[in-house]
Amino acid sequence: MIGDSMKIYDWPTGPYPARVRIALAEKTLGSEVEFVSVDLWKGEHKTPAFLAKNYSGTLPVLELDDGTLIAECTAITEYLDALDGVPTLTGGSARDKGVIHMMSKRAEIELLDAVSVYFHHATPGLGPNVELYQNAEWGFRQRDKAIRGMQYFDGVLQDQPYVAGETFSMADITVIGGLIFAGLVDLPIPGDCTALLAWYARMQERPSVRNRVSMSEPTQKQ
Amino acid sequence: MIGDSMKIYDWPTGPYPARVRIALAEKTLGSEVEFVSVDLWKGEHKTPAFLAKNYSGTLPVLELDDGTLIAECTAITEYLDALDGVPTLTGGSARDKGVIHMMSKRAEIELLDAVSVYFHHATPGLGPNVELYQNAEWGFRQRDKAIRGMQYFDGVLQDQPYVAGETFSMADITVIGGLIFAGLVDLPIPGDCTALLAWYARMQERPSVRNRVSMSEPTQKQ
Ligand SMILES: N[C@@H](CCC(=O)N[C@@H](CS)C(=O)NCC(=O)O)C(=O)O
Ligand SMILES: N[C@@H](CCC(=O)N[C@@H](CS)C(=O)NCC(=O)O)C(=O)O
Repeated sequence: MIGDSMKIYDWPTGPYPARVRIALAEKTLGSEVEFVSVDLWKGEHKTPAFLAKNYSGTLPVLELDDGTLIAECTAITEYLDALDGVPTLTGGSARDKGVIHMMSKRAEIELLDAVSVYFHHATPGLGPNVELYQNAEWGFRQRDKAIRGMQYFDGVLQDQPYVAGETFSMADITVIGGLIFAGLVDLPIPGDCTALLAWYARMQERPSVRNRVSMSEPTQKQ
Repeated sequence: MIGDSMKIYDWPTGPYPARVRIALAEKTLGSEVEFVSVDLWKGEHKTPAFLAKNYSGTLPVLELDDGTLIAECTAITEYLDALDGVPTLTGGSARDKGVIHMMSKRAEIELLDAVSVYFHHATPGLGPNVELYQNAEWGFRQRDKAIRGMQYFDGVLQDQPYVAGETFSMADITVIGGLIFAGLVDLPIPGDCTALLAWYARMQERPSVRNRVSMSEPTQKQ
């Protein structure tokens, strides 16, 4: 077992955790992992015990056999992808690595993280006991940025089948995470984003994605 | 020449560009690159021509021979590191890759990006013609977060010689970027962060860092 005794702290329906769960399924490593739930709604991710595992207080976190802790979806995906020596999610050539990392980061900045800020700042978020500071104006700006982000990725997908080019990669997973989050907070994909919608429908056909996100699909704007 | 005809759009004194310039020097690829200045103070990074190169409108951007554009410091570093097949900045083993990516991302979230938001939102930033929207309250929160981030990295460096463990990596470069930016906006490293200060002094001894950042060192709080 290459992934001998990995533990993942996450929350089953969380959009960032989804990124790692999809990566695990793509790498067929899912059965090698023990999932430990950290209840976001109760603020368990802000307790000193959890902050000692991840200073930033976010999920998911991967814990290895030897106690090594790896937070951040991109970092966890890098780890999982390198495990079997065959990078399929983060690229093989220098060029592919560069483009995949760029597009995945862009999907965070322009979509996933923007939706997250909207959720935590301009909606009740995780509730008053967890959201101790909110900046609604900033949250709404980020919501608008996320919608523009969807339009940007729609343009990308008009020209190529996947977010980073000709093959499925971490960048697709990050956009999927963004759209899962968007669905949860009622930010539907604009109806004129036909390439993004078609791509997202194709993504749902992947077992790694379908088994994960069936309960949280963004609704299409009518 | 492995880095045949690379072009980098950046701004010589920018803290994010510094990350790539340091990486280039560490990989001894600096002489293979043509630098093209994009004047941030004139808002050249927000023109349609530049946004077509990087949707997010930030520097640096690497342009390859074949026209491929790679934005985002992490992505560019991944590219450069993979060029000669000997990863020294982003890790060799799965574990090292994971930890380095985590610590570099954490250095962005908790330090570099936080200082950047402070600069753009709670100071005059790039001036009224470029900073078309500012949210000062958010900016000041991010400043405070950055100071806490310095304290966090101080703790990390009390236990290990480099940000991601036993060897110099991309994670060190990202913290350096954060401290360069902090110096530019007068956020000195707190005097009690002795491990961070000692590490930063050691970093200045690296030619890759010294030749790059001599004009913009954070001043130590008296
Ligand atoms: N940059 C982190 C973000 C992770 C993140 O924000 N996760 C959510 C769970 S879906 C979280 O922990 N949110 C809790 C909070 O921000 O209070 C990553 O990529 O892993
Ligand atoms: N996430 C980007 C951030 C780059 C960034 O913010 N660069 C600065 C230059 S130091 C910039 O372009 N700022 C201009 C602006 O935000 O208006 C990266 O890692 O490359």
